[in-house]
Amino acid sequence: MAERLRIVQKYGGTSVGSPDRIRAVAARIKRSYDQGHQIAVVSSAMSGETNRLIALAKDISPNPLPRELDSLVSTGEQVACALVAMALADIGVPAVSLLGHQIRIQTDSSFGRARIRSIDVSRIEQAFAERQVAIVAGFQGVDENLNITTLGRGGSDTSGVALAAALKADVCEILTDVTGVYTTDPRVCPDARKLDRISYDEMLELASLGAKVLQIRSVEIAKRYQVPVHVRSSFDDSEGTWVVPEEKKMEEILVSGVAFERDQAKVTLEGVPDSPGLAASIFVPLSEAGIVIDMIVQNVGVEGRTDLTFTVPQGDLAATKTICERIVSGIGARGVKASPNVAKVSVVGLGMRNHAGVAARMFEVLAQEGINIKMISTSEIKISVIVDADKVDQAVRALHSAFLGPNARSLESPQGA
Amino acid sequence: MAERLRIVQKYGGTSVGSPDRIRAVAARIKRSYDQGHQIAVVSSAMSGETNRLIALAKDISPNPLPRELDSLVSTGEQVACALVAMALADIGVPAVSLLGHQIRIQTDSSFGRARIRSIDVSRIEQAFAERQVAIVAGFQGVDENLNITTLGRGGSDTSGVALAAALKADVCEILTDVTGVYTTDPRVCPDARKLDRISYDEMLELASLGAKVLQIRSVEIAKRYQVPVHVRSSFDDSEGTWVVPEEKKMEEILVSGVAFERDQAKVTLEGVPDSPGLAASIFVPLSEAGIVIDMIVQNVGVEGRTDLTFTVPQGDLAATKTICERIVSGIGARGVKASPNVAKVSVVGLGMRNHAGVAARMFEVLAQEGINIKMISTSEIKISVIVDADKVDQAVRALHSAFLGPNARSLESPQGA
Repeated sequence: MAERLRIVQKYGGTSVGSPDRIRAVAARIKRSYDQGHQIAVVSSAMSGETNRLIALAKDISPNPLPRELDSLVSTGEQVACALVAMALADIGVPAVSLLGHQIRIQTDSSFGRARIRSIDVSRIEQAFAERQVAIVAGFQGVDENLNITTLGRGGSDTSGVALAAALKADVCEILTDVTGVYTTDPRVCPDARKLDRISYDEMLELASLGAKVLQIRSVEIAKRYQVPVHVRSSFDDSEGTWVVPEEKKMEEILVSGVAFERDQAKVTLEGVPDSPGLAASIFVPLSEAGIVIDMIVQNVGVEGRTDLTFTVPQGDLAATKTICERIVSGIGARGVKASPNVAKVSVVGLGMRNHAGVAARMFEVLAQEGINIKMISTSEIKISVIVDADKVDQAVRALHSAFLGPNARSLESPQGA
Repeated sequence: MAERLRIVQKYGGTSVGSPDRIRAVAARIKRSYDQGHQIAVVSSAMSGETNRLIALAKDISPNPLPRELDSLVSTGEQVACALVAMALADIGVPAVSLLGHQIRIQTDSSFGRARIRSIDVSRIEQAFAERQVAIVAGFQGVDENLNITTLGRGGSDTSGVALAAALKADVCEILTDVTGVYTTDPRVCPDARKLDRISYDEMLELASLGAKVLQIRSVEIAKRYQVPVHVRSSFDDSEGTWVVPEEKKMEEILVSGVAFERDQAKVTLEGVPDSPGLAASIFVPLSEAGIVIDMIVQNVGVEGRTDLTFTVPQGDLAATKTICERIVSGIGARGVKASPNVAKVSVVGLGMRNHAGVAARMFEVLAQEGINIKMISTSEIKISVIVDADKVDQAVRALHSAFLGPNARSLESPQGA
């Protein structure tokens, strides 16, 4: 007989998007249940429901009260959980839905982007003891005054991993509409392959770069509590991608994936005086305006002046320029220059930590393609470059082919520098 | 300056049925708020929402788990309350929505028809102290294990009156799509008039007979805790009908209203042996089949046998006949006879308690109209008769004219017997 496991299964909105799909989810849960496993399910709202509720709120008020908005949108998961429990009962699997207040998914009071502090698993342990499946509402919690909070977009991933940590589950399965984590986006690069295993750190770099399979906060929690996460399709039983603690042999693979982000803009403040505190006087007003800065590069200064370059989402460029032009004279800089159409391409991999050749090879490949590099920034396991927007597909394909393709050249003797 | 009152306002589903109507409700609440009153609002779900959720459940399972069905449908009120609170904030009125679990609307565990045991008003008192409007979700509560329960159809009336009782409110306003309680249905009798005041007992008899303005349980609670209830339109500011403790002068009015119920069926068990326990052997199996018996009449027996007649909703007639035919030989009765097309007409009034003439006058009026009375049953303040279904409108109009019309004959010298 197979091992009895404690499993958390998290289903996304598409997987519970219709009564038929909910029945399919129930059938899938039943298969695991019939194998004797203890199962806690975390469900998102039916696809479209959260947006429908937000639209209703916006119809009432341009700035809905955050507390009330959370109470409103949390109903989406409440509905889905009740329906999943009903569907299970209908095929003979005892099930009970559990909401944020019923199992004290305790969060702070930051409505719309609350962070989980603790989960009281006693009610779920009781369900397990009675051989029930526990259907837990994702995305929601309560603060210490029983106000309903939500965790922000994609928060059900976070609910799933946090619940798996609290339950000391053997695995947190993220069941979604893709079959796993890929080396890059298959729509851009037909050679993209599904990864069997990836480390938390690699996943963090990939997730933040646009492989939107798994919310980044959930990966941070998985890493902190060492929860094995299995990203897989909800529509079939094939193995997906395991997101796991770093393993020795992972370092043998130099590059795990090629990520990219379109619709970026690059802004340069020219001739910024090289004095302390100037960076703050630039980035504080931008941050207060809600603009998210991504890459920042500052060159070594010449004659006490330097150029400071950073990237923002394209949609924020107009606001960014307005703010920068206001700042520029105050700090004695020479001017503002913006490139509205750029993109970011990154290679990510644990292996590059011990191997200097990856950057060199990356720049060589891009040079061979005639692609101009406009900015470079690196972390321990990632190298990112900014290129012209119309070159991003070409760059991704070339880099994927060089590092991950069937004829990827060995890096034992790297060329270039 | 006008008196500062503590007011519970209960809004029905039609009143909060669209964003525009929610804004109108908010504007109405603001008018009361601006007068300095303390206001707790009880909201139903937006009209159609509860049915939508039930249809979703039925699509998943022919027999949805009662606990999950309650958790599912309770989201309707949760959504409406959040939207009302947002709409209030948008016009400068501080408001907070409060759900069953947040103010411990404690019920028993009878899912789908739970009864309220207590309400913890401390959170609402806190809202009042901060000059907030409390928006309380109707229809829902929690049992002692924090399972969500619902109170049954129309349960928001019960929530409203129970909350008014707990808060010792000066009035519970039931804001709805009618302008008050009428002497009879204006669609049947154009002479129908709105009642200014009516006693709890009269309202109980009228409510159970089809004047579906106010759920009967809410009237029972109002009577027990002596909560003044004001049934009025949510669309204008006109006075509606006050449902209040009995007042001396109410007895001067013999008849307050003429109620009726269509779609009834009459069943007679003929030649039932007149022995103890036989009534139970008839009605227990009917009740177990979920059939609601209304009027029951048993005549004095002849030669140890009697005819037993009762009424059921027309839709239950087939099932009733099947059960009766099974019983009939077992109890030694002669047979079953059914009339599928009858209706019930009742006159209700405190005044008839001290005046024997009402029954006589009622029968006289029906006789003058050539309407045959098939069954009679009476309570202290109500007389009901069963007539042919096609005579019900004529009977209502004639009785209304006789007791409540502009030319209603005085009963000082009643005719007939």
